[in-house]
Amino acid sequence: MNQYAIAVHGGAGTILRSTMTPEKEEAYRKGLSDAIAAGEAVLKKNGHSLVAVEKAIRVLEDNPLFNAGRGSVFTNKGKNEMDASIMEGRSLMAGAVTGVRNIKNPISLAKAVMEKSEHVFLSGEGAMKFAELMKAEREPDEYFVVAERLEQLKKAKEADKTMLDHIGTVGCVALDVHGNLAAGTSTGGMTNKKFGRVGDTPMIGAGTYANNATCAVSCTGHGEYFIRAVVAHDVSCLMEYKGLPLSEACKIVVQDKLVKMGGEGGLIALDAHGNIELAFNSDGMYRASKKQGGEIFIGIYRD
Amino acid sequence: MNQYAIAVHGGAGTILRSTMTPEKEEAYRKGLSDAIAAGEAVLKKNGHSLVAVEKAIRVLEDNPLFNAGRGSVFTNKGKNEMDASIMEGRSLMAGAVTGVRNIKNPISLAKAVMEKSEHVFLSGEGAMKFAELMKAEREPDEYFVVAERLEQLKKAKEADKTMLDHIGTVGCVALDVHGNLAAGTSTGGMTNKKFGRVGDTPMIGAGTYANNATCAVSCTGHGEYFIRAVVAHDVSCLMEYKGLPLSEACKIVVQDKLVKMGGEGGLIALDAHGNIELAFNSDGMYRASKKQGGEIFIGIYRD
Repeated sequence: MNQYAIAVHGGAGTILRSTMTPEKEEAYRKGLSDAIAAGEAVLKKNGHSLVAVEKAIRVLEDNPLFNAGRGSVFTNKGKNEMDASIMEGRSLMAGAVTGVRNIKNPISLAKAVMEKSEHVFLSGEGAMKFAELMKAEREPDEYFVVAERLEQLKKAKEADKTMLDHIGTVGCVALDVHGNLAAGTSTGGMTNKKFGRVGDTPMIGAGTYANNATCAVSCTGHGEYFIRAVVAHDVSCLMEYKGLPLSEACKIVVQDKLVKMGGEGGLIALDAHGNIELAFNSDGMYRASKKQGGEIFIGIYRD
Repeated sequence: MNQYAIAVHGGAGTILRSTMTPEKEEAYRKGLSDAIAAGEAVLKKNGHSLVAVEKAIRVLEDNPLFNAGRGSVFTNKGKNEMDASIMEGRSLMAGAVTGVRNIKNPISLAKAVMEKSEHVFLSGEGAMKFAELMKAEREPDEYFVVAERLEQLKKAKEADKTMLDHIGTVGCVALDVHGNLAAGTSTGGMTNKKFGRVGDTPMIGAGTYANNATCAVSCTGHGEYFIRAVVAHDVSCLMEYKGLPLSEACKIVVQDKLVKMGGEGGLIALDAHGNIELAFNSDGMYRASKKQGGEIFIGIYRD
């Protein structure tokens, strides 16, 4: 039996001690810790990493603090449009959705696409039809309306820009006792986004990737750069083809390649030996990790 | 100055001599040759590979024989929903659209996303709004209605399946005299597809990838497998990190990895030295290539 391990993130960006209150920090730490606990509960009972990833992300989606599920930001039209993806390292099976609305847990819908459809990636109205067929849990618009998000949209509209300092995403990577890796990512997108923009979150290879031969990766950041750099798959390829350890691979992609392109953000990654990397080039990243028998680590700022 | 080179494909799948007429074969050969000519016209005048890729793909989109643009197949609802993506190897800039309707040339819309938006990937109604803003050329439903496609939809509906023997896609890779690579892919999707399915075509890394450091790749095949295998980027990584030549990299991905997964299809690829690979594991692939000063090659079947 392998030793299990799990890591989660709650987004990266301009996260500074100077703009944080002790209450808010405590709420974020609790949110991350709750997610780890939900995932670990599965892993502890010899459950599958895929299920652990789903459960941990559901907790982050249900928490209004994070830009996913309930806490999703608003598009230019004042709507929530959510994306999510999930991948299993053993089978390389994957599922993803983009542009879904009123779905309580997009990560579970992505898992249903993987397990119950012949497709990998469903979008918009079509994905909503599939959700109906799957009886995916729905919530009314009000469920998603969080005062702070409306304020962000108002500010973004006034400045006529998408809000890059709120590049929130949530994600999880897990290794179970059977030696299987899994990764998942979920987001409420960019504040004030237009034109049905799709970021890296639902894109297998960019925002999410898992392969038992190498690693599981979940990204958060300025999605356009993460797509162009095929970030999650690039970490895996640096391990598979160049023989680099996880730490080296993450460093090259996050601190060198992405920085040169101007791509702000980070990722969480886990290899088949249980090594964990929480890498980011932004001011901060909400992150937490735990290995079997070890203490939980929770981090927010760069230092 | 580099020697320019270009290759195009018009889809892969169950393409057999036994089911082809001489007239039909001639029409396909002419379609491929016309696309090469359109791309070469740009390259010959020291134009950019990105423009050559766009021009060649427009010719294939305008040709009703190929499943892209005018010849797009029908979704379960009897609609055309088209996807396209394009990428430039010098800047790693990219653009993509999914689920667009009534757009004459989706590849040009993808190029507009790359050049005139702050995003990489736009979807559905939002992408249509962007198209309107860009004044993208539109065509009425009738333009796309091709008798053979309606017959395919009828048959697919009767059998209640998506048609995997018509996994048509068109694509182009080009190297210009400035040494810049580019790749693009466009498709009308799967006959009888449901749920807003997104295939590999609009996914940077899966269906399309270009990087001056390695190669330009455009894929065609059973998209779900191509997404899970991150095919186009994998070819690039095998070259960049393992130091393999283009031919070896394509062979591993198409004949080994994809075959083991059960992923039918192929790809066209071109490296910075002008080496061309037209690789597929299906019965056939509509394909053509030409190097500066050389003869055009056109192929359809496996032999």
